[in-house]
Amino acid sequence: MRTYNIHKPDAALLDAIRHKIDNLNKPKGSLGRLEDLAMQICLIQQTLTPKLNNPCHLLFGGDHGIEHEKVSVSPREITWQQMLNFAKGGGGVNMFCRQHGFKLYLVDVGVDYDLSNCHEIYNRKIAPGTANFIDGPAMSEEQYRQALDVGAEFVDKCHADGCNIVCVGEMGIANTSPSSVWMSLLGDIPLDECIGAGAGLDNAGIRHKSDVLNRAVNRFISETGGKADTNTVIRYFGGFEMVSAVGAMLRAAELGLIVLVDGFIMTACALAAVRLYPEAKEYMIFGHVGDENGHRRLLDLLGAQPLLNLGLRLGEGTGALCAYPIVESAVRMINEMNNFDNAHITKYF
Amino acid sequence: MRTYNIHKPDAALLDAIRHKIDNLNKPKGSLGRLEDLAMQICLIQQTLTPKLNNPCHLLFGGDHGIEHEKVSVSPREITWQQMLNFAKGGGGVNMFCRQHGFKLYLVDVGVDYDLSNCHEIYNRKIAPGTANFIDGPAMSEEQYRQALDVGAEFVDKCHADGCNIVCVGEMGIANTSPSSVWMSLLGDIPLDECIGAGAGLDNAGIRHKSDVLNRAVNRFISETGGKADTNTVIRYFGGFEMVSAVGAMLRAAELGLIVLVDGFIMTACALAAVRLYPEAKEYMIFGHVGDENGHRRLLDLLGAQPLLNLGLRLGEGTGALCAYPIVESAVRMINEMNNFDNAHITKYF
Repeated sequence: MRTYNIHKPDAALLDAIRHKIDNLNKPKGSLGRLEDLAMQICLIQQTLTPKLNNPCHLLFGGDHGIEHEKVSVSPREITWQQMLNFAKGGGGVNMFCRQHGFKLYLVDVGVDYDLSNCHEIYNRKIAPGTANFIDGPAMSEEQYRQALDVGAEFVDKCHADGCNIVCVGEMGIANTSPSSVWMSLLGDIPLDECIGAGAGLDNAGIRHKSDVLNRAVNRFISETGGKADTNTVIRYFGGFEMVSAVGAMLRAAELGLIVLVDGFIMTACALAAVRLYPEAKEYMIFGHVGDENGHRRLLDLLGAQPLLNLGLRLGEGTGALCAYPIVESAVRMINEMNNFDNAHITKYF
Repeated sequence: MRTYNIHKPDAALLDAIRHKIDNLNKPKGSLGRLEDLAMQICLIQQTLTPKLNNPCHLLFGGDHGIEHEKVSVSPREITWQQMLNFAKGGGGVNMFCRQHGFKLYLVDVGVDYDLSNCHEIYNRKIAPGTANFIDGPAMSEEQYRQALDVGAEFVDKCHADGCNIVCVGEMGIANTSPSSVWMSLLGDIPLDECIGAGAGLDNAGIRHKSDVLNRAVNRFISETGGKADTNTVIRYFGGFEMVSAVGAMLRAAELGLIVLVDGFIMTACALAAVRLYPEAKEYMIFGHVGDENGHRRLLDLLGAQPLLNLGLRLGEGTGALCAYPIVESAVRMINEMNNFDNAHITKYF
């Protein structure tokens, strides 16, 4: 399996960035989170004049063996139907990509339907859905490696387009289930505190989902003696689309791209990436905290403060995309706002 | 004084709007606040296909007699210096107007400096700052009427440009003080719970501000026997720029424009507008909750849920402008997202 060469950005510029921000014509700190964002972006790009170039959105689609246990309110066929809908431009992800000028890459990495006739979707299908992790690992080691590599491949494509900021999103019915398990095992949090309603389960549905996931996790722990490493946890429960997202995040961090992280599922992928390479965190901006039970706690685990809280729970990367203009505002601030001297304004503190 | 003819939007369309939103290809409610926004905007515009046209930002500038009591960390001269800075395009408000395509109107309604040579600033100066409300009313009845009318005049200008959404912002050193007093007297909340750090007072500064404002309010209450009406409260303490903002909000509501409300000071203006005409609230979208003590409570008083919480406290309308793309996202959702039938997707609930 390939390794990623990910470094924390050099902090030597820190004082110069802080000095520039503090001399913009405004009370110190009065642009709040925009100032923190500008600081992070300047460090990532190692410049006092950062730019956001050719933003890209990577959407990975895949199905899940665990879906057969009826852990989701939505039927399996929604995954492929939505992929085709995205290909035609009619989904949630499409309208926000258009709004914010993102190039969208649709990648079938494991959808349980033949999408190879649709030329708007890249065919990187590893298998028509993962295996059901109630019985054993969701994917083989070879499949795991492949899924990571697909993620990296598409970041390389974006990078070749001159892109320096990527959003990552997913389509995969039932994928809050593996996300909850990752969160529990990688974050050391009791499983039930990681399980929520997904796209709309009622209380009985959540209880059933909890029964299924507890059964799977208990089996896994007894199989591995509770000593499984991070890669094993990710592989055993992960969806192909989630593992590709992890690979994309790692490759983006390696190349020094900004990664805009979406909701619950993508935050679970961010946790997986950060458990593998802690420095990857420095490249991540967290777009949105949703209502899914545990999402706030998952963000806390990462020390992450999301930009938005709009009650979104659609996935596809929509929460990250909606946060993009805030990131743009931060970049405008540090590039376009006059400093006290140029503006001929008394520096008041 | 003119009256405003403001109606609650006709609710007859409500079912049709809800039906349209619930049939977009997504789990019901999964676009959270965007769905509420789309609903509100459809009602305001009385259509299932709303549009945002030619957005305008009105920035009113004025100085405050109460500034002489040292209630602000920033010196008085910042008001005119910033107005000139905005005229040259170097302020916070400018970069966000450029980002989101807003036309900016800069209006001097009471700045304590001659700005008449600057052609980028409309000269509607009523007086070079208000009187100090520690000694009596900040403005006369005639000045109050004038300030309201200036606000309405500029909304008419926007409306003539084909604009159907306005942001309102302010520049006026010391204007958190009158805002706190309005909040206390119009919201019936103890004054000290309405007073905060403004642009950056320390604790001693906040205590001093509190002493000054308590003195002024106690004098006012004993003068009026605690029986002052809303107009009197607004006039006695208000800044010219704040009263113009109230006039702008009322005229916008009268014309059926969406009003995007900024931070603490503009929320106090929104409260004043809603106390005069409760139906005006239906036209308001609240952009941002900041850190200023009392802002959250002020929003609660209005039953308002702000879209953003980014720790901004710059004023100028920046919090409202940063929220604009979220409003745009809501409009895109209802216009561009496929419904289940068009998308050939199983309606899953």
